[in-house]
Amino acid sequence: MPAPELKIQKWFNTNEELTLAKLRGKVVVIEAFQMLCPGCVMHGLPLAKKIHASFPQDKVAVLGLHTVFEHHDAMTPVSLAAFLHEYRINFPVGVDQPGTGPMPKTMASYRMRGTPSLILIDKSGELRVNHFGDVSELFLGAEIATLLGETHVQPNSDTSEDDVSAVCDETGCTV
Amino acid sequence: MPAPELKIQKWFNTNEELTLAKLRGKVVVIEAFQMLCPGCVMHGLPLAKKIHASFPQDKVAVLGLHTVFEHHDAMTPVSLAAFLHEYRINFPVGVDQPGTGPMPKTMASYRMRGTPSLILIDKSGELRVNHFGDVSELFLGAEIATLLGETHVQPNSDTSEDDVSAVCDETGCTV
Amino acid sequence: MPAPELKIQKWFNTNEELTLAKLRGKVVVIEAFQMLCPGCVMHGLPLAKKIHASFPQDKVAVLGLHTVFEHHDAMTPVSLAAFLHEYRINFPVGVDQPGTGPMPKTMASYRMRGTPSLILIDKSGELRVNHFGDVSELFLGAEIATLLGETHVQPNSDTSEDDVSAVCDETGCTV
Amino acid sequence: MPAPELKIQKWFNTNEELTLAKLRGKVVVIEAFQMLCPGCVMHGLPLAKKIHASFPQDKVAVLGLHTVFEHHDAMTPVSLAAFLHEYRINFPVGVDQPGTGPMPKTMASYRMRGTPSLILIDKSGELRVNHFGDVSELFLGAEIATLLGETHVQPNSDTSEDDVSAVCDETGCTV
Repeated sequence: MPAPELKIQKWFNTNEELTLAKLRGKVVVIEAFQMLCPGCVMHGLPLAKKIHASFPQDKVAVLGLHTVFEHHDAMTPVSLAAFLHEYRINFPVGVDQPGTGPMPKTMASYRMRGTPSLILIDKSGELRVNHFGDVSELFLGAEIATLLGETHVQPNSDTSEDDVSAVCDETGCTV
Repeated sequence: MPAPELKIQKWFNTNEELTLAKLRGKVVVIEAFQMLCPGCVMHGLPLAKKIHASFPQDKVAVLGLHTVFEHHDAMTPVSLAAFLHEYRINFPVGVDQPGTGPMPKTMASYRMRGTPSLILIDKSGELRVNHFGDVSELFLGAEIATLLGETHVQPNSDTSEDDVSAVCDETGCTV
Repeated sequence: MPAPELKIQKWFNTNEELTLAKLRGKVVVIEAFQMLCPGCVMHGLPLAKKIHASFPQDKVAVLGLHTVFEHHDAMTPVSLAAFLHEYRINFPVGVDQPGTGPMPKTMASYRMRGTPSLILIDKSGELRVNHFGDVSELFLGAEIATLLGETHVQPNSDTSEDDVSAVCDETGCTV
Repeated sequence: MPAPELKIQKWFNTNEELTLAKLRGKVVVIEAFQMLCPGCVMHGLPLAKKIHASFPQDKVAVLGLHTVFEHHDAMTPVSLAAFLHEYRINFPVGVDQPGTGPMPKTMASYRMRGTPSLILIDKSGELRVNHFGDVSELFLGAEIATLLGETHVQPNSDTSEDDVSAVCDETGCTV
């Protein structure tokens, strides 16, 4: 299944608008969190920081995704900015766009079960892991290395074994 | 030194306005924190929760004090309410009144060095411990038990219980 | 209940034969352990080390008691000596005397349920806490401080308050 | 560099004499430890247990290696047997053969710096990681997955020194 494109209201810790399309060719790790979710603060975000510090950034992109689905007034971008500063989170963090219900758009498109959720996307843009709650470091290290070891077949080739053009979304595909 | 009276803008988890004067006769533990301070979230508040759960509440009163001295816009009472709910903090928490500078009033009157700070006040209203940063559980358990073991000499005052002037300062008197 | 006297086969980390009688006037903390018991290594002994480091040694005596009741061949005094060295345990440790069954003598006289067990004895030699398994630091700190706060009423004394020699030696006597 | 063959005095938790030659085709993880080494007990062995539980045993072989280089009298096979039982270590553990000096033979042939040491050997029997001290789970998970992803090129040799034919799979074998 192709990973749905991110729908971001505002970015922190990056000067450019990031998209999964732009990150094609890298393994992408998305840590979906809420700043007032204890499990995110205790486990999810520290793990994301370790991944960010442990793998080469030109091969593994770590992104935070602020997926607020409760207490919206308490977790505004103003509060998030201070949170990222105090917890020394340096990788890019995008604020998920509000949806029609309490759940924001990207969170809904990935059918996440809650926060923290950890998403792994392979070099070709396929969604490979969609994990809710605590996750073993050993398992995660193994998963990332497995995805790193895979060959990224470039699309646009007239023929491709894996038909990666499938990765593109409804607007038109990219890469 | 008599513990300076609390100057509170708004209380959570209690229906009454708490004062140190009203708590005379109990050992009082004050955990001063900011909701976006990692050391408070990781160490200070969990310790306060343990104290609240371990000692009889008619003998040891545990209070939180939200002493925001940075990122004021990020840690409003609206955000604090959600924080207390998510972290399941059930003891009374007061929001320290804004001062003229960045430091709020009660924090300034105790000359706290930062957050988390842990304050112990004895049954007679004297400030006995004013600790900044991590604190040993063993030490803290011992301190609280020591204060619990002390006799609280009731003032012979014919005046009212709430007459905090009764608590006294260096000029004389006291409990 | 008076704490039963220790029955020790061999001492480590002390040049003298320790007895509870000699320690009268101090609060005594006994950590009963087996060197191959995971709960002792992970929780019991680290806690005993903290107590040893946190309280004044002229008021609180911390003792280890090696109460082997299984795998006797694997936990001989030769192995224990290396264990104490590697784990940097500096307080006195006595090896409990073998009993007629698998359980050694002191362990049996205290009716301990297993290891780790933590024993608190007050200044007068009374057994006050006999705890099996994990124990809260907060609780333990409070217990020790409570015992420290108690007055030590000297037995039989027409003699001076401080004449603890009255408390007796191995030849007989005491409280 | 080919991993030096193990020189084992006695095995626990296995009925057969294990050799690296017999394990060719699997990724081999060796946890070198001493039963009285705190870092081994706190970090090294728990990590080895997690690896043993996390990866399929037909692809990743986890071995313990008891490399005693100090306190030899305190860490005999009798003591080790009780240790393995109490700490619930279920994977095969070999006792390294005594050398001419304090350091045992296998430990010396790998030039280990101490305990805990963690060794990774690839499917072809090459020594790939020789790590001393604490190791990150994330890194280790990644390393193992990387080795798992590698193709095991079977040597076309009609005869093999070590007779690794046992290693072969259903399609044909070799080495």
